[in-house]
Amino acid sequence: MTVKTLYRVKFFDTDTMGVVHHSNYIRMFETGRVEFLRQLDLTLTEMMNDGILFPIVDIGAKFHAPAKFDDELEIETIPEALTRAKMQFSYIVRRCGDEKILAEGTSTNVFTCDGKICRLPEKFFSRLVKGL
Amino acid sequence: MTVKTLYRVKFFDTDTMGVVHHSNYIRMFETGRVEFLRQLDLTLTEMMNDGILFPIVDIGAKFHAPAKFDDELEIETIPEALTRAKMQFSYIVRRCGDEKILAEGTSTNVFTCDGKICRLPEKFFSRLVKGL
Amino acid sequence: MTVKTLYRVKFFDTDTMGVVHHSNYIRMFETGRVEFLRQLDLTLTEMMNDGILFPIVDIGAKFHAPAKFDDELEIETIPEALTRAKMQFSYIVRRCGDEKILAEGTSTNVFTCDGKICRLPEKFFSRLVKGL
Amino acid sequence: MTVKTLYRVKFFDTDTMGVVHHSNYIRMFETGRVEFLRQLDLTLTEMMNDGILFPIVDIGAKFHAPAKFDDELEIETIPEALTRAKMQFSYIVRRCGDEKILAEGTSTNVFTCDGKICRLPEKFFSRLVKGL
Repeated sequence: MTVKTLYRVKFFDTDTMGVVHHSNYIRMFETGRVEFLRQLDLTLTEMMNDGILFPIVDIGAKFHAPAKFDDELEIETIPEALTRAKMQFSYIVRRCGDEKILAEGTSTNVFTCDGKICRLPEKFFSRLVKGL
Repeated sequence: MTVKTLYRVKFFDTDTMGVVHHSNYIRMFETGRVEFLRQLDLTLTEMMNDGILFPIVDIGAKFHAPAKFDDELEIETIPEALTRAKMQFSYIVRRCGDEKILAEGTSTNVFTCDGKICRLPEKFFSRLVKGL
Repeated sequence: MTVKTLYRVKFFDTDTMGVVHHSNYIRMFETGRVEFLRQLDLTLTEMMNDGILFPIVDIGAKFHAPAKFDDELEIETIPEALTRAKMQFSYIVRRCGDEKILAEGTSTNVFTCDGKICRLPEKFFSRLVKGL
Repeated sequence: MTVKTLYRVKFFDTDTMGVVHHSNYIRMFETGRVEFLRQLDLTLTEMMNDGILFPIVDIGAKFHAPAKFDDELEIETIPEALTRAKMQFSYIVRRCGDEKILAEGTSTNVFTCDGKICRLPEKFFSRLVKGL
């Protein structure tokens, strides 16, 4: 399954070059990831309430063309690996209704309990794995 | 006592108008406030470790002239009230070595324990009050 | 007229206290303001293309209760003054479907041409004034 | 040459997990890059004044251990390629005085004139290349 999330570029997302600052695509990827998980009925709050955190261990992004203030963007979130040990996603950002890729990226989260790497409990894994 | 904190404007602080986004002055005020408290040997981490939080209850700012990328700013932090119930500060932001005021503002923090408003314990208050 | 804009709290909006950082309400106010203007068919991009900027000259906010990660917020944007010289708005932030006010605030923008305060051209003013 | 830039973690850099949000390391890398260029007497403002922009085309980061509020970090900026066509850097973030790597990353900027990829003029290249 892939999930498409809409995001309207805010003034505070832009910089002096008149385009979205590159760090804000990393935030868009997170927005896409959270919505992907929500569609699996998985919320980070529920995981945190159970003592499970999900630190990001790597990210990457390529920027092909700039987005500007007020652009309506579509963040496509694509699962690459959803296991008991990690969640890997890739992302594609386009303007709505436009095929051209503005930015694309990847991320990996692991799961931790009490500050140590752990395996995702069945309660959450059974939902996560449906996203593949 | 007043405390002056230097801050170099980052590219990500600016927006499409080529100036520092107004929300980032609110962040500069926080930077000034934290440095003010540090000079009193008061760190927010120590307070949090003791279960004391310090939510902001109001802020205000006036913007007179824009700061731009790479400007070296000076945030002047001025105590207005430092009591067991609250910390009030005002702030003035200028370019280093320039009298002209770019922005000024105010903030009020209160103290909470277990989610309820509380009075600041002596351990911290005795340090805080030295800032007046 | 008042405009209600939905905003889902992002992980990157929160801080170590587990709540939305106060500076991010100022950004929400901007999000509400931009949507208010869009409903009047007024886009900041069109104004910038005509050489008109709209610097913020003051903001204020009061924080009554914290919003947390993933909360679905409603930003109510209320016009206070919409003239050829300035736009003043007030804002109320609540959780969707909840009467309780989490935060409220105000802002004033003026208009500038070539870096100087100017009066808003009729082209834009005729649309802006319909928002009252 | 490598350049070390100090950065004190701000409250607004952190998130609900009590650590620096991963997107903010990307901003730290930029802070390091700007300081690296400043030591070569190259400022982005001077380049922009000459009509040269420097969009980021890719970034990557690995996160090994979290930084927290108030940590004093050291961003080490290392040139990987400094040519007329691009600037590539790698970055290592540590706590001051600690060998442990918290985060590391890479970035590539290209140069553009009038929105098209261009070769960096001699005026700037002669300074940039001294950074190798």
